[in-house]
Amino acid sequence: MHTRYLSVQHVARLAHRVGLENLITRIARQIEHDFTHWHCFEKSARLASHSTLGVIELMPVSNAERYAFKYVNGHPGNPSRGLSTVMALGVLADVHTGFPLLVSELTLTTALRTAATSALAARHLARRNARCMAIIGNGAQSEFQAVGFHALLGIDQFHLFDIDPAASLRLAQHLKECGFKVMLGASVSHAVSGVDVITTLTADKTRATILTVEQVGCGVHINAVGGDCPGKTELHPDVLRKARVFVEYEPQTRLEGDIQQLPADFPVTELWTVLTGTAPGRQTDADITVFDSVGFALEDFSALTVLHHLALEHHIGESLDIVPNLSDPKNLYGVLHGAMAPQPEAAV
Amino acid sequence: MHTRYLSVQHVARLAHRVGLENLITRIARQIEHDFTHWHCFEKSARLASHSTLGVIELMPVSNAERYAFKYVNGHPGNPSRGLSTVMALGVLADVHTGFPLLVSELTLTTALRTAATSALAARHLARRNARCMAIIGNGAQSEFQAVGFHALLGIDQFHLFDIDPAASLRLAQHLKECGFKVMLGASVSHAVSGVDVITTLTADKTRATILTVEQVGCGVHINAVGGDCPGKTELHPDVLRKARVFVEYEPQTRLEGDIQQLPADFPVTELWTVLTGTAPGRQTDADITVFDSVGFALEDFSALTVLHHLALEHHIGESLDIVPNLSDPKNLYGVLHGAMAPQPEAAV
Repeated sequence: MHTRYLSVQHVARLAHRVGLENLITRIARQIEHDFTHWHCFEKSARLASHSTLGVIELMPVSNAERYAFKYVNGHPGNPSRGLSTVMALGVLADVHTGFPLLVSELTLTTALRTAATSALAARHLARRNARCMAIIGNGAQSEFQAVGFHALLGIDQFHLFDIDPAASLRLAQHLKECGFKVMLGASVSHAVSGVDVITTLTADKTRATILTVEQVGCGVHINAVGGDCPGKTELHPDVLRKARVFVEYEPQTRLEGDIQQLPADFPVTELWTVLTGTAPGRQTDADITVFDSVGFALEDFSALTVLHHLALEHHIGESLDIVPNLSDPKNLYGVLHGAMAPQPEAAV
Repeated sequence: MHTRYLSVQHVARLAHRVGLENLITRIARQIEHDFTHWHCFEKSARLASHSTLGVIELMPVSNAERYAFKYVNGHPGNPSRGLSTVMALGVLADVHTGFPLLVSELTLTTALRTAATSALAARHLARRNARCMAIIGNGAQSEFQAVGFHALLGIDQFHLFDIDPAASLRLAQHLKECGFKVMLGASVSHAVSGVDVITTLTADKTRATILTVEQVGCGVHINAVGGDCPGKTELHPDVLRKARVFVEYEPQTRLEGDIQQLPADFPVTELWTVLTGTAPGRQTDADITVFDSVGFALEDFSALTVLHHLALEHHIGESLDIVPNLSDPKNLYGVLHGAMAPQPEAAV
């Protein structure tokens, strides 16, 4: 038994090997599978440690077979220090033995699974003929959202806005290289005008109002990703009041999502109930829908499951001796004297 | 900025480089330092996921500068599958950015920090002239306890007992190689007769009674390590009632320690109050003292701090690209096209 390790480069290689749209689609399919087995999972709100500059979180989840967790930070000031706002890593382990099967980068993978979850939700909540999406906040996750929405909904027109024009230009260039139609908005109002879907992806850890009710047209689906932390919101409360609101895991979203601005009895629908057909998604073309997404541990579980499967299939990754492989398990002291079982050759 | 990785072999190499007794002593000193700064830490009981065969836990803790967590399992049936009962890994991160400074094996390190904590507590709770210790349960952690008690208290005589005689023989051989005096007990009663300290280190996830009140002589210190999980105890409740009981972090030990057998108002003393001089340790040579140790996240924090420092000092470990090192932090998508900043050469 050996622990497999996937670095950032390994996951990038996997995305190349199977194709980025295909990888996001496979993760979305796994998320759909796992969300429709909602009651098989031991779930908890993530364990967050807040400091003045950011937050560090642990996100565990398990079913009868597998246990997964993610370590992830959120530090909006990081880019000015040359670091990513969000950095993550995680483990997929065997419940029967506790053995860590996979240790993986999860920064890139968080962007993949967030895009997969957003697009999966939108497939049930956006209008069927949706073709155009505004992306407000053009940071690290924005390309992945666009690719995910193209893969799952066929959306191929994007209106971009960010307070940092360089970020929008970078995103525009990448999306054009994908063959998508791109428009740079002069303002949020300009960017969201006439679109079918609005994705908000801003990073500031403040109660911001990125979107007001006047800016939201009839029939629009709002994919609200950036309001994901206590004290960090993006939507004016009237937008939420005017919409049907969908969430991942209600106990966590009440604390972290845009609905933290509203009373605890404001009605929301958990996404898994839509996926299982228990609750309706979009009901009419005039509905305004909001997916108040904060990111849930089960999405990382699904992503780690897919990565592990693909890594084995494509022989990508390395063997990591992060736990001892002892010839006599009771002789841990023996590792000080070279009593480890032989290590396998590193994989590709 | 690069993440350093310490494998099992790296930590074993560190132990060789600085000496095992010295390494345990340095960890004990760091634990003492961190426990005496108790109120500077954000603490929580560990997050446990129980299954029929074992438990998987996450143990986070942080101060204003550093955040650490450990992933650890406990599966008593693992040795029959060729796996260790306890396997662990962890991360030390920078609170100001969330950057993971160190990813490390923590199986070997858990044994080191548990021995360091036990010996540190015993230095305040055992009689000053203690020279002889019984070790009941001769599994993976037993050598480390012996070495730790020799390093911090000068104990050099050990009485061993395990229901698996092969385990006792292995331990006896290792301890003789260290120059210690060793006696193999025919039973628990035989092994604990006349000793100054009794260490219980058994692994069964049951309410066992390893030690009864008749077996505990006047003035003995009991280092109770193996009762560390709900439903997993080692001491008869009368042993606890007859003793002064010391714990690491009361909210966690009430759930997991041997005191789970007693009412919630049974008096206990947190170790840090003894280390700061706020509460007395041993008061008379006749006292029976119990350190009801379950293992606390702060001990791993201390151990990771020492490992990180020593790894840098001795150039041990490797660089791990588990988080992206981006030339433009907002261009995560760029890693799919090779836009990573250059990686440094791997260290020794």
